[in-house]
Amino acid sequence: MRNIKLVIAYDGTDFCGWQRQDGSSRKTIQGEIENALEKMHGSPVNLTGCGRTDSGVHAVGQSANFYTDIDSIHPSRFTPALNSLLPRDIRILDSCEVDKEFHARFSAVSRVYRYHFICRQLLPHEQRYNVYISRFPRLDILNAYGRLLLGETDCTIFTAAGDTSKSRNRYIYSSQFYIEDGRLIFEIRANAFLRNMVRSVAGTFLHYEEKDTPPDKMKEIIASKERSLAGPTMPPQGLFLWKVDY
Amino acid sequence: MRNIKLVIAYDGTDFCGWQRQDGSSRKTIQGEIENALEKMHGSPVNLTGCGRTDSGVHAVGQSANFYTDIDSIHPSRFTPALNSLLPRDIRILDSCEVDKEFHARFSAVSRVYRYHFICRQLLPHEQRYNVYISRFPRLDILNAYGRLLLGETDCTIFTAAGDTSKSRNRYIYSSQFYIEDGRLIFEIRANAFLRNMVRSVAGTFLHYEEKDTPPDKMKEIIASKERSLAGPTMPPQGLFLWKVDY
Repeated sequence: MRNIKLVIAYDGTDFCGWQRQDGSSRKTIQGEIENALEKMHGSPVNLTGCGRTDSGVHAVGQSANFYTDIDSIHPSRFTPALNSLLPRDIRILDSCEVDKEFHARFSAVSRVYRYHFICRQLLPHEQRYNVYISRFPRLDILNAYGRLLLGETDCTIFTAAGDTSKSRNRYIYSSQFYIEDGRLIFEIRANAFLRNMVRSVAGTFLHYEEKDTPPDKMKEIIASKERSLAGPTMPPQGLFLWKVDY
Repeated sequence: MRNIKLVIAYDGTDFCGWQRQDGSSRKTIQGEIENALEKMHGSPVNLTGCGRTDSGVHAVGQSANFYTDIDSIHPSRFTPALNSLLPRDIRILDSCEVDKEFHARFSAVSRVYRYHFICRQLLPHEQRYNVYISRFPRLDILNAYGRLLLGETDCTIFTAAGDTSKSRNRYIYSSQFYIEDGRLIFEIRANAFLRNMVRSVAGTFLHYEEKDTPPDKMKEIIASKERSLAGPTMPPQGLFLWKVDY
């Protein structure tokens, strides 16, 4: 059995997130790719993703792996073979053979997410991939908040309700707001993320920036671990799983 | 009766072009906006567009006008009123009152179209609004071709089959290839365009650039008016009606 790693991009708009939903007719990314793998193999194949993106969230660099007994083709040929079976809004960008021990989730050392904002009325061709904000925020304040997250940080305040993670400590490598191509981008890299965490960080920072909250106070709010102090969770369509490093 | 001008943006992906198709169940931009106007007015309202975009072509600055007997609201209020009745992939950006004589098509002095190319595999979130080309062309040659069009030019070679225009002369104000946000853009401004003309110009220029055709030869090809010498007509999804000036 060979272990194959895939790099995957998708437009999440018309999917109920990454994770397969057994016994449901709702389309998911994992479900669609597992269906394509089953067609190639003649039997079910389990696909392990790096992380579960929510309904409506996009990816340009999701990673996943599966074990295959097909040894008649070069690993790179899984890319065109799967793409010919997948809907156009899911594309395999790369396929290669990796160590038997490679695990798309546990072997990942960091994930990068990007959130895209536009500070004027969205044009129709921007609506699927950006979120409107009504005023342009002060980047220096947002980036001062962002620096508070660097290093090992208890992210309880940014947790979705009902989170059952054992530890809510995450190691944040970078967290930055900047302008690119006329958009406001929030980019964050961490060893791993809690559910809804990026959307909650973005919403919380924008909420307190608008209220002119100084970074010192923001530091106390994060340290309080009081979920009720978090700002709104931003909608999914602005969010991209950008890259996974191994 | 007041004469109201609209500025309209749309994602053309799921529409059969601008023009209403009577007796057909296929959705068009004009049809959807006229339906919304009829709901507001209680009777049919005719909407005159600046130009007919083809199936799958987008717009960020289409213009249109209609006559209304509703005098109880400020002209700017047609924007939110229509948007509340329209699908999300059609957005009214502006509405204002104009002269009785204003005609969205005949009063226009120039139109700007943009075509978006990407020279690497398209990511899913790029597929609706860009077209893939397999190699990066030489911009100096493309722009030398573009300069041949400036001024009053017989555009017969770029005409769609079956075109019945009386004159195929168009006045081209600018025609340029450039890089923006990682895309190759072709932008062209003219007093008016023949059907499929922008897609044919783009396809013809790329075709002859790849064959290393010198601009002098390109000049002869355009002057020949031989439709069979044109290159391929590019697909609609890369094309945007960008702006109309009055």
